[in-house]
Amino acid sequence: MTTIGYLGPKGTFTKLAVDTTFNNEDKVSYSTIPECIDAVANDEIDIAVVPIENAIEGTVQLTVDYLIHEVTLPVVAEVVVPIQQHLLVRPDFGGDLSQITEIHSHSHAIAQCHRYLHKNLTTAKFSYTTSTGRAAEIVAESTEPIAAIGNSLAAEEYGLQIFAENIHDYANNHTRFIVLAKNKALVNVKHPVQLEKTTLKITLPSDQPGALHQILSAFAWRKMNLSKIESRPTKTGLGNYFFIIDVNQAYDDALFPGVKGELEALGCEVNVLGTYPVYHMNL
Amino acid sequence: MTTIGYLGPKGTFTKLAVDTTFNNEDKVSYSTIPECIDAVANDEIDIAVVPIENAIEGTVQLTVDYLIHEVTLPVVAEVVVPIQQHLLVRPDFGGDLSQITEIHSHSHAIAQCHRYLHKNLTTAKFSYTTSTGRAAEIVAESTEPIAAIGNSLAAEEYGLQIFAENIHDYANNHTRFIVLAKNKALVNVKHPVQLEKTTLKITLPSDQPGALHQILSAFAWRKMNLSKIESRPTKTGLGNYFFIIDVNQAYDDALFPGVKGELEALGCEVNVLGTYPVYHMNL
Repeated sequence: MTTIGYLGPKGTFTKLAVDTTFNNEDKVSYSTIPECIDAVANDEIDIAVVPIENAIEGTVQLTVDYLIHEVTLPVVAEVVVPIQQHLLVRPDFGGDLSQITEIHSHSHAIAQCHRYLHKNLTTAKFSYTTSTGRAAEIVAESTEPIAAIGNSLAAEEYGLQIFAENIHDYANNHTRFIVLAKNKALVNVKHPVQLEKTTLKITLPSDQPGALHQILSAFAWRKMNLSKIESRPTKTGLGNYFFIIDVNQAYDDALFPGVKGELEALGCEVNVLGTYPVYHMNL
Repeated sequence: MTTIGYLGPKGTFTKLAVDTTFNNEDKVSYSTIPECIDAVANDEIDIAVVPIENAIEGTVQLTVDYLIHEVTLPVVAEVVVPIQQHLLVRPDFGGDLSQITEIHSHSHAIAQCHRYLHKNLTTAKFSYTTSTGRAAEIVAESTEPIAAIGNSLAAEEYGLQIFAENIHDYANNHTRFIVLAKNKALVNVKHPVQLEKTTLKITLPSDQPGALHQILSAFAWRKMNLSKIESRPTKTGLGNYFFIIDVNQAYDDALFPGVKGELEALGCEVNVLGTYPVYHMNL
């Protein structure tokens, strides 16, 4: 059976992404992004799901840096999940918000619900946890009038009740996850593909004004649409920085080799980190 | 007296940045990035220091999003601090690594020391904390043979000994912090300025292939050097994304107004988030 590793613990947004994306696979929780990626590299598991853009559980930097510097594994899919934060209480909670003495959650989750908390829970103290899943566990095990901020999966996993739904400040907030696997055929998502994307890493020969502009020319005149661009400092001292670029189309036999050839002629190094389908999950 | 707010608790990299950058000011710890920024906006404190690129304490997204959507405060300085992670033990520790049963730290700090831990501490269990400062506190209060991963300030604050220095995987890793203040004159850094930078937010009128290329032309033909570019999805549904661009020079009366005028003629919205000095701290 196919085994999927994810950044745990239970009740996190990564687990929610895994549960809504995949069905019958075995699921194993890892505590850090490198451990989860290593497990695929070492053939202990088949698939890793790690955050690539997620203000709570992980950072773009840690995942990107590990893939760039440590392990070469292709990105085989991307999963986009809306962030929905809820106020979670035990089922026996009386129903009076003013009774709540403590709010438990990850500091970034509390930050994401800043407006709601300032308006409705002015007297409750904040208690910071390592994850939203852990916050739900603390509330479930307590007998005090305390609440957690977390997602619907955390409520389900720890038998909590959603007291107030969608208390996060921004409706259009999303988390993005990448799926890593040596064998693409094992990734079996039961949802329609939203679009195809290709992620490139482009390293410049030297830091010079206009270099990025020159790089983008290769995409612009081919009318290739970029959905993300990010500069990252190199850690090796070789050059000053590199770029991660997402192109909104699958790697093909004409346009991409043309771009690659032109950029290499300019002295750039071009690596294809993956060409893959993107899935949008609606909870 | 000037009061500086920072993302706490004690012994974090943000506190280290504040201590190495500023001298005689009062310092107040905040638990979340929005709380710290709000305190300056509401005139409770004079200066806020929050992470803008930091894999452990904060994310670019949370800080940038809060500045873009909630509060308008200028960036008045940037502070760059190298990440140096150490293995911290109590002063009475015997000195045999194989005795250590548990390593406490933030999961991202443990991830940053992946190689060292895999080589030297194969049997110790990991215990995850909300910050590296909190991990040092746990070790200080314990009587068990446990260790923490954290910086030199955490060692100092909690009376711990640095057992192994610089155990992080990458030597060239840095954290970046932005300094926010209504009154620039209160920011009094006792170090030489490394360079001047200007940060712009540029919103495109619509998502079209080549739009970014067109934007960068305005900088390229003026030979203005960009040190960072990042695309961020908008949360309002207005347009698809915006760009945060760092230009390696101070805002002037000729080049920047020229860029702004050209981009606005193309239908872009241009906001100056700050023009400010950059300080590099050597620990």
